[in-house]
Amino acid sequence: MVTNTRHEVQTSGQGDVHDVTPLVARAIAESELVNGLVTVSVVGSTAAVTTIEYEPGAVSDLNRLLDRLAPFDGHYAHHERWGDDNGSSHVRAALLGPSLALPFAQSQLMLGTWQQIVLLECDTRPRKRPLVVQLIGE
Amino acid sequence: MVTNTRHEVQTSGQGDVHDVTPLVARAIAESELVNGLVTVSVVGSTAAVTTIEYEPGAVSDLNRLLDRLAPFDGHYAHHERWGDDNGSSHVRAALLGPSLALPFAQSQLMLGTWQQIVLLECDTRPRKRPLVVQLIGE
Amino acid sequence: MVTNTRHEVQTSGQGDVHDVTPLVARAIAESELVNGLVTVSVVGSTAAVTTIEYEPGAVSDLNRLLDRLAPFDGHYAHHERWGDDNGSSHVRAALLGPSLALPFAQSQLMLGTWQQIVLLECDTRPRKRPLVVQLIGE
Repeated sequence: MVTNTRHEVQTSGQGDVHDVTPLVARAIAESELVNGLVTVSVVGSTAAVTTIEYEPGAVSDLNRLLDRLAPFDGHYAHHERWGDDNGSSHVRAALLGPSLALPFAQSQLMLGTWQQIVLLECDTRPRKRPLVVQLIGE
Repeated sequence: MVTNTRHEVQTSGQGDVHDVTPLVARAIAESELVNGLVTVSVVGSTAAVTTIEYEPGAVSDLNRLLDRLAPFDGHYAHHERWGDDNGSSHVRAALLGPSLALPFAQSQLMLGTWQQIVLLECDTRPRKRPLVVQLIGE
Repeated sequence: MVTNTRHEVQTSGQGDVHDVTPLVARAIAESELVNGLVTVSVVGSTAAVTTIEYEPGAVSDLNRLLDRLAPFDGHYAHHERWGDDNGSSHVRAALLGPSLALPFAQSQLMLGTWQQIVLLECDTRPRKRPLVVQLIGE
């Protein structure tokens, strides 16, 4: 059995990180599935999904690493193509990945206490992000 | 219901990036599944799967980051073990991951307009890469 | 059909990498599933799952990259919040991701000969890590 729910998350631009765990937990609770796999994926090539302890310190530490790896004002060949300013966004998103698959059992996500599912905005402007939560199970 | 199809992608060596979206879309279209999860995975420890806007600029930007993180001519303990020259390949592949799981609905991949599924060759020589496209759904 | 098995892996602290392929292969062999998807995920926000050639050289090369990206003794805002010393752990784990989904067919993992599934400890102290192996298939 498969269910897809589509959500929208309004972001404020590069470095904005949203805890989407409640939204995912609700999708599981509202389904009739008890055991299975949940896949959380963001539609688009300039955002990413992962897990982290969702507290401002750890989130800013991750952003600082991404700023070092792919600085906003670095040189990007992507900019020359379209006149875009979001080369850093594409590189960050490709590195982190757009999707996360996690098991659930007895209708509960199998996450640690200090572990949240997050949507990371990598783009350089606010975006309305489609987030797909898919459940497969029984 | 589960289907596996196995494909081969001929690559030209480190930094070669292939858009495999058409191949994945065809696997979905040719199956009888309408809603479900597609997992795209490359067999081997020196290649990776992710999504990116597949245009030469963004692809070269990603490669430039990977060259900085794990330069081909850096020092690798892996080289001392086997006399290999692909330490940079193993490190890149482990960081990016060999597999990507994404939802599909109404027989369509749920990707953004500028978002493609790509196979990244990280190895230092041309390879014939087995790519497994697995569909689970209904 | 879905099965979840829960395992524990005792780690020795940051940089400890365990080959969990035998454990995953056994979970598949002991199930009644022949074709499907296996998801391997670690519960917690300071560990990660990926694949690599599991030999000491490649593993130390990956650790050296992670030490450069997120050094243990770097400055982390996370430390200021809780008095923790594991800011580097959170950043590494978020970058690599807690979960890996891979296809299996005819009861066999579809991995390369030199490709192993590994649990990476990113935390700064020994941990007993819950590892969930979920099978979905037929």
